[in-house]
Amino acid sequence: MEKKKKIKPQRPRGFEDLSGNSLNELIQLRDSIQKVYGLYGFEPLETGIIEYSDVIGSFLPDQDRPNEGVFSFEDDDKRWVSLRYDLTSGLARYVAENFDSLPKPYRRYQSGWVFRNEKPGPGRYRQFYQIDADTIGSDNALSDAEMCMMFSDAIQNTGIEVGNFVIRLSNRKILDGIIDNLNINGNSSGSEINLSIMRSIDKLDRLGLSGVEQLLGEGRKDESGDYTKGAGLEKSSISQILSFLESGIESKSQSRDTCLKNLSNQFGSNIIFNKAIEELSEISNIIDAAGYDEKKIIIDPSVVRGLGYYTGPVYEADLTFNMETDQGLEKFGSIGGGGRYDDLVARLKGARVPSTGISVGISRLRSALKFLNKSSINNESLSVVVLVMDKDKRSDYYKIASSLRNEGISSECYTGDGGMKAQLKYADKRNARLAIIIGEDEIASNSVTIKDLFVGKEFSDKISDNKEWRSGKDSQKNVPINDLVETIKSIV
Amino acid sequence: MEKKKKIKPQRPRGFEDLSGNSLNELIQLRDSIQKVYGLYGFEPLETGIIEYSDVIGSFLPDQDRPNEGVFSFEDDDKRWVSLRYDLTSGLARYVAENFDSLPKPYRRYQSGWVFRNEKPGPGRYRQFYQIDADTIGSDNALSDAEMCMMFSDAIQNTGIEVGNFVIRLSNRKILDGIIDNLNINGNSSGSEINLSIMRSIDKLDRLGLSGVEQLLGEGRKDESGDYTKGAGLEKSSISQILSFLESGIESKSQSRDTCLKNLSNQFGSNIIFNKAIEELSEISNIIDAAGYDEKKIIIDPSVVRGLGYYTGPVYEADLTFNMETDQGLEKFGSIGGGGRYDDLVARLKGARVPSTGISVGISRLRSALKFLNKSSINNESLSVVVLVMDKDKRSDYYKIASSLRNEGISSECYTGDGGMKAQLKYADKRNARLAIIIGEDEIASNSVTIKDLFVGKEFSDKISDNKEWRSGKDSQKNVPINDLVETIKSIV
Repeated sequence: MEKKKKIKPQRPRGFEDLSGNSLNELIQLRDSIQKVYGLYGFEPLETGIIEYSDVIGSFLPDQDRPNEGVFSFEDDDKRWVSLRYDLTSGLARYVAENFDSLPKPYRRYQSGWVFRNEKPGPGRYRQFYQIDADTIGSDNALSDAEMCMMFSDAIQNTGIEVGNFVIRLSNRKILDGIIDNLNINGNSSGSEINLSIMRSIDKLDRLGLSGVEQLLGEGRKDESGDYTKGAGLEKSSISQILSFLESGIESKSQSRDTCLKNLSNQFGSNIIFNKAIEELSEISNIIDAAGYDEKKIIIDPSVVRGLGYYTGPVYEADLTFNMETDQGLEKFGSIGGGGRYDDLVARLKGARVPSTGISVGISRLRSALKFLNKSSINNESLSVVVLVMDKDKRSDYYKIASSLRNEGISSECYTGDGGMKAQLKYADKRNARLAIIIGEDEIASNSVTIKDLFVGKEFSDKISDNKEWRSGKDSQKNVPINDLVETIKSIV
Repeated sequence: MEKKKKIKPQRPRGFEDLSGNSLNELIQLRDSIQKVYGLYGFEPLETGIIEYSDVIGSFLPDQDRPNEGVFSFEDDDKRWVSLRYDLTSGLARYVAENFDSLPKPYRRYQSGWVFRNEKPGPGRYRQFYQIDADTIGSDNALSDAEMCMMFSDAIQNTGIEVGNFVIRLSNRKILDGIIDNLNINGNSSGSEINLSIMRSIDKLDRLGLSGVEQLLGEGRKDESGDYTKGAGLEKSSISQILSFLESGIESKSQSRDTCLKNLSNQFGSNIIFNKAIEELSEISNIIDAAGYDEKKIIIDPSVVRGLGYYTGPVYEADLTFNMETDQGLEKFGSIGGGGRYDDLVARLKGARVPSTGISVGISRLRSALKFLNKSSINNESLSVVVLVMDKDKRSDYYKIASSLRNEGISSECYTGDGGMKAQLKYADKRNARLAIIIGEDEIASNSVTIKDLFVGKEFSDKISDNKEWRSGKDSQKNVPINDLVETIKSIV
């Protein structure tokens, strides 16, 4: 054919390709989490990736770029549509649209790609994978407690051991109560000033107390020179919030009961605050009775979560071990979270629909498992490559591959046009376990040669003489063709 | 809270929500197909949903609307991006981008949502699920033969029995050869006139010979009054193509060998045509040797597939049983197909990369399995609802649910606020198998009542007296609390 003008093959910034074992890891991780959600009686849901923009709205944490963050475009009928930026907004639409036919409470899990029209960076994608679980239509503390316990079970089921993670539980009303005590003008739950304070506090883990102090005041310039405008609080207000955060840091090592008692002593005169303590106590009692101790779930009042729509209990799952980063040893940190959002569905339903849910970001979890060496995946990779030594005999080769597949062993005939060397290289590259060789000698003796590519590799690591390796004495054996399937079954 | 202005909850036209068992069906179907692809040594791939528009191009069958069909919008950097309209275009980009590091041949499977910006209609969605498998970088007939055999195995693995489906194999060069014989100006493989003839023939199943005759000539007006311009061939050319199609219809009931011999006798003087027969013979020999007879794979020269980029062998999988439609009994028809496309990756790579692949549309397959009553899914649905009779005891109820989950039994405590009637209604709506009741009587006797909701339903179908059913004598039993888990394990 003619050589046509070449278009440069590239993917848009912030979009990732996943293949082979990396993809198998994601799938296994998703399935291990969803299995727990299913055991808890949550049912699966899949909503569309495109939604009407005004219907799903935009509830992203970074309100500094209000019109950005979401991929949106005009549909044929001149109505704006958006790619889903999370799985909660589509759920709210789904529930409102199908309210009468759904069981109530409605409990579902959902996994899938979500899209953020943000500046991509290292480890920061514009398409990423989330797994959510939500309970819609329940005011019951059991539904919040269940989120924490189910979250804990799900993380454990991915292979992360107790001690390496913790669910941090708090309540948005704690902060609402403290802010209420400060007598700031225009403050109410969900008001601009409350959200601004909340987002400052949400950065405690990353910026420390002094960073939060700047954000609560005039503002803060980061290393890159970018300036973030602060909440503009007075010094006395700032110091009250800081002292609350300091006591919160202590509370992490306390029992849930002690933590709630101390909080109550500190701020117990405020009615909103007391409501928070009451709700947390009720959740804590259920968690206690169900046997989830402070190794799994703690109360940590500094948890606020960045999203504006939370109204009550909030949860965050942190991995507690250190890992090496460019900045030295750092805590791995959050892999997901959630909380109660009683007003979100109301936008569409016209009446309050109490809801609570959690969301796991799968990319960070994948990195964590890799770090913990827990990303051993089931051996779904290729087991056997049957080399094609003689093109005229390929039907025979194909029959061998077919008989191995009938035994559940992943097998293939080489379908390229390379010689033996290229074929062995291919088998290596595919990370195949075995190569099967049937050349003239084998045909004459009615046998096959089975080459163990893993043994060959280990062997080659140990010896220095290349020729010796090439002879491959230890890595291959000749068996009668009738023993082939049984021999391979005994190896893989 | 205040009642805010309500936004109407609706999804854009052509987008579907999937939930519960419908979604489980899709997942099970996907996994059963992918399991076969994995056994054949294909590895998984996931490419991004957003691609640069010029990189993936547009190769949709319906060229009457060249600028439509694909969802496209401008990215921040003013470059146009598109939602993937199939999985092949992203694969071509991925392969060209990573050519040197990939094993060759590169064999992957991929599943996911694809998007068509077309007019939605009944059963015609703008977001739908596809499962592909492709071999890139192989000219080898084995890779085409493998597609047919793997396709056949995959369909069987979904539960559709041999006899209810058939893979129809042909070669694009058959038609190229016939058209070449007609001496039409400007015709060459892939030229406008060839594509126009090919698309007319592709509608044979739907429009019959007379419809195709119109499309090959002046054109055709359909029932809705829409007019499709024809290929404008002369009468003598049209009659030659029609006589070929007629012989093709006969060939469906012939052996692959006989079919190829007849074709060869009819058009054997043309060099392009002879190449087609040669390629099909080679594929057929491999298929023969591997034991796939004409119950599974036939040669059917009328198969052309609508896409312009196919260059050689083409495959289509048809379900052969009838099902009732608005037009009476009709064959179920195609559930997917594919073919060899040797020039598609060349757009991006600058050199020919021979490729072949298949694609399955999962929605039609789901309908088919439902029709065949084969959509029995693994019991992943909810098994047990523990009713909450006394809010103060919910920790105890929760412990029961938890102990059942530890045995792998999907269980939940009711998290709503309804009474016993509402709770049983909820359990029914969730299609739960059992409800567990621990009220005052049970607490006094240290026992639990287990209500079998399925037995209750069957029972209620048989009896006329509503009161009798409500008493539910046959559907529930009381057991000591210590026997609870064992008793439930014996039921579910």
